[in-house]
Amino acid sequence: MRGATVRTALVAAFLLALSAAGAPAAKSAAKKAPCDLVVVAGHALPMDAAFTVRGATAVAVRGGAIVAVGDPAEVDAAWAPKQRIERKNAVLLPGLVNTHGHAAMNLLRGISNDQPLMEWLTKYIFPAEAKNVSPAFVTAGTELACLEMIRGGTTTFTDMYYYESDVAAVVDRAGLRGVLGETWIDFPAPGHANLEETKTVTRAFLEKWKGHPRITPAIAPHAPYTCSRETLQAARALADEYGAPLLTHVSETWDEQMQVREKHGKSPTAWLDEVGFLGPRLCVAHGVWLSAEDLATLAARGVSLAHNPESNMKLGSGIAPVAAARKAGVVVGLGTDGSAGSNNDLDMFDAMDFAGKLAKVAALDPTPLTAPELLRMATIEGAKALGLDRLVGSIETGKKADLIVVDLGKAHVEPVFDLPSTVVYASRAGDVSLTVVDGKVLWDGKRVTTLDEAKVLAAAREWRGKVLKSLETSAEKK
Amino acid sequence: MRGATVRTALVAAFLLALSAAGAPAAKSAAKKAPCDLVVVAGHALPMDAAFTVRGATAVAVRGGAIVAVGDPAEVDAAWAPKQRIERKNAVLLPGLVNTHGHAAMNLLRGISNDQPLMEWLTKYIFPAEAKNVSPAFVTAGTELACLEMIRGGTTTFTDMYYYESDVAAVVDRAGLRGVLGETWIDFPAPGHANLEETKTVTRAFLEKWKGHPRITPAIAPHAPYTCSRETLQAARALADEYGAPLLTHVSETWDEQMQVREKHGKSPTAWLDEVGFLGPRLCVAHGVWLSAEDLATLAARGVSLAHNPESNMKLGSGIAPVAAARKAGVVVGLGTDGSAGSNNDLDMFDAMDFAGKLAKVAALDPTPLTAPELLRMATIEGAKALGLDRLVGSIETGKKADLIVVDLGKAHVEPVFDLPSTVVYASRAGDVSLTVVDGKVLWDGKRVTTLDEAKVLAAAREWRGKVLKSLETSAEKK
Repeated sequence: MRGATVRTALVAAFLLALSAAGAPAAKSAAKKAPCDLVVVAGHALPMDAAFTVRGATAVAVRGGAIVAVGDPAEVDAAWAPKQRIERKNAVLLPGLVNTHGHAAMNLLRGISNDQPLMEWLTKYIFPAEAKNVSPAFVTAGTELACLEMIRGGTTTFTDMYYYESDVAAVVDRAGLRGVLGETWIDFPAPGHANLEETKTVTRAFLEKWKGHPRITPAIAPHAPYTCSRETLQAARALADEYGAPLLTHVSETWDEQMQVREKHGKSPTAWLDEVGFLGPRLCVAHGVWLSAEDLATLAARGVSLAHNPESNMKLGSGIAPVAAARKAGVVVGLGTDGSAGSNNDLDMFDAMDFAGKLAKVAALDPTPLTAPELLRMATIEGAKALGLDRLVGSIETGKKADLIVVDLGKAHVEPVFDLPSTVVYASRAGDVSLTVVDGKVLWDGKRVTTLDEAKVLAAAREWRGKVLKSLETSAEKK
Repeated sequence: MRGATVRTALVAAFLLALSAAGAPAAKSAAKKAPCDLVVVAGHALPMDAAFTVRGATAVAVRGGAIVAVGDPAEVDAAWAPKQRIERKNAVLLPGLVNTHGHAAMNLLRGISNDQPLMEWLTKYIFPAEAKNVSPAFVTAGTELACLEMIRGGTTTFTDMYYYESDVAAVVDRAGLRGVLGETWIDFPAPGHANLEETKTVTRAFLEKWKGHPRITPAIAPHAPYTCSRETLQAARALADEYGAPLLTHVSETWDEQMQVREKHGKSPTAWLDEVGFLGPRLCVAHGVWLSAEDLATLAARGVSLAHNPESNMKLGSGIAPVAAARKAGVVVGLGTDGSAGSNNDLDMFDAMDFAGKLAKVAALDPTPLTAPELLRMATIEGAKALGLDRLVGSIETGKKADLIVVDLGKAHVEPVFDLPSTVVYASRAGDVSLTVVDGKVLWDGKRVTTLDEAKVLAAAREWRGKVLKSLETSAEKK
């Protein structure tokens, strides 16, 4: 198989070289086709369907896409890259896919911890957001989040927040790939006085960013307990009109479960199905309290699930039935959630580690969610959950060049007996030494190429001061 | 309080200067007393009883001990250090204390994962150990572990393995502090043909290392299901003779619980109490299945508990009743366990993060085990669990200078709203930029001063080859 892939690539290179030369091939031109980038690493987990564990591997990139994956000698013989990056004792992976979060909330990182959910929301998050969330806030917060994600090997992320057109501008500049959902909620929120304004703002957002190579504008009705039937149906209709993804929170807490059941006489999932909200292109976050029946419904409607183990643990929400969801046929990706206290960072290595260990302790059995399964959830299945698996999520010829390199050769990683479990259970976000999105190097292990790190951090500290001041003012007024 | 401490330190500095001068004080000598090291950081969590959260802080170190803790200007005015290290946007903490592990098993890192406990033990761990464990193996494995711990901010650790005198030699050289327990088990083990040999080996080990300033030799009977009454009583007697700590595993799995109950008609804890094994200087690891009665017994006997959240999760063992144990008066420290599959690293930042989130999800409540409590468990309470709290576990004048600096100012950490939760939930082992033990700098953020990192990593990779070969041979023989 591997030989065949390389041969195919060589033929492709030959044909490309022919067309580039625009004339019968000169022997030298046929030998090396020009490309933008070759990345070489001592090991690779390309996350193909067979879960191949490769030794030394090279990937050739041209025009943002992967044009060859093979043994370094063969790729080097076929391709003449503008830039060649080699990491010997390291593993090459597709970029990680974060299927749930609120990027701009990085500006509120850990603002409250270890408190009951309602205390956390009403004393900190809601007042801090009401006083501060603006285009400038989401710009600074998303820049900080992009910086963290680029350094930590996340190449695609999902956002549910406000002013998503401003978020998109940051993501565009930062070079990441994003599914960016404008939040809809049935009470006045930043930039959303009412449903009509929300629809107008969202339509403008969809119009502006549709067709962008890395940005997928999406619609994010907050949750079944904060959105009416009318809101949900309007969101589904607009999403269908644009072929846009839908993002929402479902069955995160037992309270929500009970609230929806009291109001509508059924589970949140059953109610969403009744109003016609469920369907393809919908990814629901959390799903802690999903029943077997709910899972069957989600699977039947082609709805995917974003599992956020750290958030569900830290807020005491519960343990999502991930193994059961996968068995029921629901595509499950991993997410970090926001970092304002439900988590404190956007670290997808932590997400894998927590998801694995949580599934095992929940089952009192070490076998559920193996390291290869966790890696799939963090890459190709996350991409599938977002409808992006034809573009990203694995290192295969024809796909977009979203890839990362994780260094081995460190005291907390060596010796490496088993590559997948090393990456899942021992590697850290800080071991990522290369992040490439759409063929562009965003992080080379020394610096982030698209953002001014010092400036982004300084802005974050400045916002911290403003937020603290705004909370004092809120407190004084009471 | 803070001012008083600084004043006391100044008086002490004055008196020291007097005695150093051996004559009536010259004004200049009285102003600045010589010391070995001053460490300055922008923030500090000294882990004193009041859980003070400090701004800019300096610590003066002399002869391995802390001689002053105070505001940088005051400490700089009073002390003339040979070396001064400053980290502005960073937090100073006492070194982390790992209360349970098997250091040399780092050479078997992640050798098997996601498998049932008995598969893991019988197919990988036992054969790999039987074929390889030797003084050379524990030397190389403990060196790798020390390297990882030094870089990751662990300054005191607990070991349960074989050839502990060789382990001690490595720890002595590496500069760490260790409670090192020679394992006793009722079947032939490396260097332990039978109980008589075990006693002889252990007595020699205790004799050799007693009184060492950083190494506490200890006795580690493996577990109540692998040690007879005779073994346990002999271990307790020898420990009492030397005033040595005792380490063991208790109630890790439900199977163990049932096995002991079947054999002895009571819980492991009740049986250990019956044979007279429980008592001060004993730290038991895991305690997943401890009952309220067991907890009361442990508290009454002055026994401490080492909580290993990641190991208990990854092996599917269960959730230890940590909040209940603390309420019952049991001192609880945190541990990583070994890295051969029950965990994959020796990362105490992970241990805090997992312990916190696990306690919350287990209670379906975000309030148990707050960030300050988790920090206490990882420092002063861990030290107390090992009987070392008068020496280490907090940054206070008179204590040993075991301290670390954790860098802030990074994209996954900023902005910092709350210092304790930042360290627990966002900081990583890779953010540690200074590790000092007994006043000696072991890691300055660039290099480990006591071990040859490249050599240690190369040896680990070499052992990987030997171990894999030995497992092939085992498989062929079957």
